[in-house]
Formats: sequence, structure tokens, C-alpha cells
Amino acid sequence: MVGVGLVGGSVALAARERAAATVVGVDPDPAAVAVLDEHTTLDGLGEVDLAVVAAPLGVLPDAVAAVLDAVGPDTAVTDVGSTKQGVVERCGGDPRFVGGHPLAGAESAGVAHARVDLFDGATWYLTPTPSTGGLHLERVHRFVTALGARPTVIDPSEHDRAMAAVSHLPHVLANVLVAGAHGPVGPALRDAARTAGANPPLWAAIYAANAHALTAEIDLSLERLTEARDLIAAGDLAALEAWQVRAAGQRRALLEAGAAGGPLAELHATVPNRPGVVADVALALSRAGVNISDMALHPSPDGSRGAIHLWVAADRSGDAHAVLAGLGLAVGS
Amino acid sequence: MVGVGLVGGSVALAARERAAATVVGVDPDPAAVAVLDEHTTLDGLGEVDLAVVAAPLGVLPDAVAAVLDAVGPDTAVTDVGSTKQGVVERCGGDPRFVGGHPLAGAESAGVAHARVDLFDGATWYLTPTPSTGGLHLERVHRFVTALGARPTVIDPSEHDRAMAAVSHLPHVLANVLVAGAHGPVGPALRDAARTAGANPPLWAAIYAANAHALTAEIDLSLERLTEARDLIAAGDLAALEAWQVRAAGQRRALLEAGAAGGPLAELHATVPNRPGVVADVALALSRAGVNISDMALHPSPDGSRGAIHLWVAADRSGDAHAVLAGLGLAVGS
Repeated sequence: MVGVGLVGGSVALAARERAAATVVGVDPDPAAVAVLDEHTTLDGLGEVDLAVVAAPLGVLPDAVAAVLDAVGPDTAVTDVGSTKQGVVERCGGDPRFVGGHPLAGAESAGVAHARVDLFDGATWYLTPTPSTGGLHLERVHRFVTALGARPTVIDPSEHDRAMAAVSHLPHVLANVLVAGAHGPVGPALRDAARTAGANPPLWAAIYAANAHALTAEIDLSLERLTEARDLIAAGDLAALEAWQVRAAGQRRALLEAGAAGGPLAELHATVPNRPGVVADVALALSRAGVNISDMALHPSPDGSRGAIHLWVAADRSGDAHAVLAGLGLAVGS
Repeated sequence: MVGVGLVGGSVALAARERAAATVVGVDPDPAAVAVLDEHTTLDGLGEVDLAVVAAPLGVLPDAVAAVLDAVGPDTAVTDVGSTKQGVVERCGGDPRFVGGHPLAGAESAGVAHARVDLFDGATWYLTPTPSTGGLHLERVHRFVTALGARPTVIDPSEHDRAMAAVSHLPHVLANVLVAGAHGPVGPALRDAARTAGANPPLWAAIYAANAHALTAEIDLSLERLTEARDLIAAGDLAALEAWQVRAAGQRRALLEAGAAGGPLAELHATVPNRPGVVADVALALSRAGVNISDMALHPSPDGSRGAIHLWVAADRSGDAHAVLAGLGLAVGS
């Protein structure tokens, strides 16, 4: 662990308890040692299996680059930053790096609040690039599953767009709302304003790091809000009711999409041993809307190829089969 | 009670239990009789002390006008509609009418869900005009207090602007948010989207009835959102952090303003017996940000003037004193 606060500390606790891992940590805070097996320095990391970097967003690309310099050729390196474009631009060409982002513990509350169950059931994004090594991706994927989270492979820029829509934009709109409100706070405003003004240094860094995707989402919202304005100004009751019904359906679809689910199916395929093939598979499935619940790689003894085993939602296994076949792979199940 | 659903039924229950009132009701639903002392028709209302109209927003102005036609010259008439401009334009010239709006029970859930405590501690707006009779305003004010609510006198158009900002706009922004979101729903979106697509016929009517104030609030939000967009695009961390800190302060101020509070002070003044003087006093205090927690009117025996007693927050009594003196009244406390 490089950076042992709330998130890093919780990773350390869960890694020791649930993945039976030995955790060495790098952090200037002496309190961090409580969740570690060993305190060390960057130079002391050496040949660890996996380095998890939990650094503030503003220094994250530099921190990950420094860790990649410090660790060995077989170490997988991941991070927990809430935007991915910056760190992937800087480090995504290194096969050892797999970008990551758990949807938990966004507040920078310190190691004293670390919890072994912080990631239970949480979505944990992984953002490989075509350069990412398959074994490194698999190792991070399995680690995240062991911590109790649900790994979801996604393209880094698609990740940043999704976060802009589901997390950053709501924070911006909450700020806009409280700037104009006055009078007694009803339940609608209380709900909508809850995130206004959250953790200023953290959110300033998130807005800045995701400015590109976030301003695009704001532009879409400006368009939608202008349409809503015109609809309301026109005062057509049937059209207003239809709009409200549509919003109810969109809300329902959103909440249902967030629910965990159902039985899994296993697929396997033989893949050539070339850089990026596992990341290609994971990203192609992600683009088709198929999430990988679990994965395992079995290299052939001579290293020329490998078997990839994937577990996906049973009702998506047909789609997954088609995606793998579309990549030219021989698929079994 | 004219209209005995969730809100009207709760008014009836609380009026019987807490104001020891005899409640006659007008409603086509036979289930309504359970919360009434007597079922009647519009023509049967006669010389009731107070008629409360709980009709859907689209027909509210007509319904209040019909009740004003049906009741006697001393009956006070109020309503519970969530926007006030329409009904006040139609009926605000009648001294017997006092517009009202309790911030509770917005869902049209039916009389079976009526509760005696629905209005406990709830803000209940009263929107007199310069034509409103002082005794009528006082009667409605005391009635609302007896039900357990906190009456707040406010100018009708200011009411609609405030509702647009604290209730209607959050609903519009929730709809805009769910239209653009995709991916797992984090806590910020879950909070912000809670009101998306609420009760379509009810909200279509609210949007239409408050189109003027609501589109003005949307225009302000479009400006603020455009400013936020430019701030984020510029990526200045210090400016972004300052914006976030400002939003935190605005959120805190909003929530604190919603909290109940503190000791009261009593003021009294002699007022001439001319139409609208009590409404003038109440509205002038409202404009100065002073809320009337309780009020009592004592007409002189010859009817030429009266004493008005007001209870306001103790820390606002100096301001209230100044407002009353500014109206040319002799004030004591």
C-alpha cells in the first residue's frame, strides 16, 4: 500500500484478513502501521506481487510513475483514484499498470476510519489499456474480488464519462441548487442538496481532473434543462405529465441497473500470448455491456498461449460468447 | 372541508381533535365520512367559521370561487394548493379569502392515509393580499397553529418564487439528472434522483401552475450552471475549492434556516380598522424576514380600531418593532 488513509487502510485490512496477504505500507503517518504488517519506503517495496497506490488525485500520476520505477518487473500496480484519464495517460503504456477505482470511501477521513468491510459489494472499476498485461489485470481483478468488491472492467475515458454523469454532475447541480434556494427546506431540496459543498479540496481536485468529461456532461444538462424550461413555459399538461412519466422510468432503470444479480455462467477460450489480449477481451465485453464477475488465466507450459476462464451473468453468456468469437477466439462453455 | 383526501382528511382529523371543531365535509368519496362529523354539499356549508378547500391545482381557482359563492359573509376561506398565484389572482380580492399551503402531504394518497399529526411542526404558508380581512387572516393563522403547524405569512408571488427554488426546481433537476445518467448509482445520484418522476399528474399540474416563477428559477440555474461549467473548464484548483466552500456555507445556512427555534417575544400595536391593515402588517414583517409565530386581534368595542398582538422570535423583536413603527403604528412590548 502506498498511501494509507481511509481507502488505503481499508484495502490493507481487507487484504490481510480476506486475501491472507502480507501488507507492507508506505505512508508518512505513523498511525498507518496499525493496519500493516510492515512499514517501509518506496525503495523498500521491491518485488511485491501488487502495489496499490492511494494518493490524492493531484499527485496521483506522479505517485504511480514513482511506484512503477521502484517495484520489480512482475509487480502489478494499481491505484484507487476517482478519475482515470490523467493517470492512464501518464502510466497506461506500462504493462504492469491497471487503473482502478472503488466506489467507496470517497471522503479523505484518515486511517483511523479504515474498515475491513468498506468495499463489500461495491463496484470497483478497473481500466486496462491495450498495453496492460493480462496476468497483471487478472491479479488485480482477483484481488479486488477477494476484498469483497465487484470488479467492473471499463475503458478509462468511458469510466470518466460515467463518473461525470453519476457522481460529479450531481455534486455540481447540488452546488447550483443551494446557491439559489431560500426558505424552508423541503424533502426534495434536502435530498438534492446533501452533497453540496462536499470536501472542498477533494472535490476541487476531482472537478479539475475530470474537467473534460464533466464539462461535456454539464453541456448536455444545459441542453436538457433548456428543453425542460421550454416544456414548462409551454404549459402543456399532457406533455409535462409524459416528461414526468419518462423520468420515473429512467430513475427506475437506473436503480435496477445498480442492483446485484443472478446466477453466473462460465466461459473459456484459448488466447494467444501477445501483450494486451486479456485487456482486449475485457474491454470488448465491457463495451458490449457484459461484466466479468470473475476471471482466471492459465498460461500453457511453453508460454505461447493460455486459457482464459470468465464468469459472467448467465443471461449475458450468449452475448459474451459472441464477443469472444468476434475477436477470433475459440470459445467453450 | 371541501375535498377530503390525504391533506383534507388530515386537516379534518386535526381540527376535530386539536381545535375541538365540528367538521362538515364536501367530497364525492363516501370513505371521507370517516374523518368528518357530517357529510354535506357546497350549498349546505352555509355560515361555517372556516372553509378549507383541498382541490387539485388545475381546478383550484374555480373551486375556491365556488366556495366563496356558497358560504356566508363572515366565513373565512382558505386552501392548501402548492402554488398560489392562480388562486390569488382569481379570489385574492375577496376579503374572506386567505391563500394557504402546508408543506406536508404533497402526494395525493387518499383519505385512508390521513393522519392527525400530518402537519406537526410543518411550515404552513399563508398568502394574504392587501384586500384580505384581518379577522379572517387571524382566524386562519390560529387554526393552522392549532393543527400543529407553523404558519408563515408571505406574499403570494414570493411564495411561488420560493417554492420554485426549494421544491419545483429540485424536481426538474432530478429529472434532468436521471435522463443523462448511466452506470452504477452512487450515493450522490441516489440522493439527487430520489424525486425524479414523482407523481406525474400532480407534478405536471404544479409545473404548469408555477411556470412563471419556475422558468425564472431555471433561467438562474442555467446561468449558475454555465458559470460552474466555465469554472471547471478553467481548472483553477483554488477557485474550484473556494466555490465548493461557498456551496458548503450555503447548504449550512439553508439547513439552519429550516430549524425551529428559540424563545419568542410579544409585541402589540393599535391598528386602525381599515381593510387590509393586518395583512399589511403581516406582509411587511414577512418582507423584513420576521415570521409571526402567533397572533391575536382584539377589536375595540366601537369597532373603529383594534389591538394586534404578535409573537415573533425574541432576537427579531427589534426588527419587528421597527417595521411596525415604520407603518406608523404605536408599538408596545
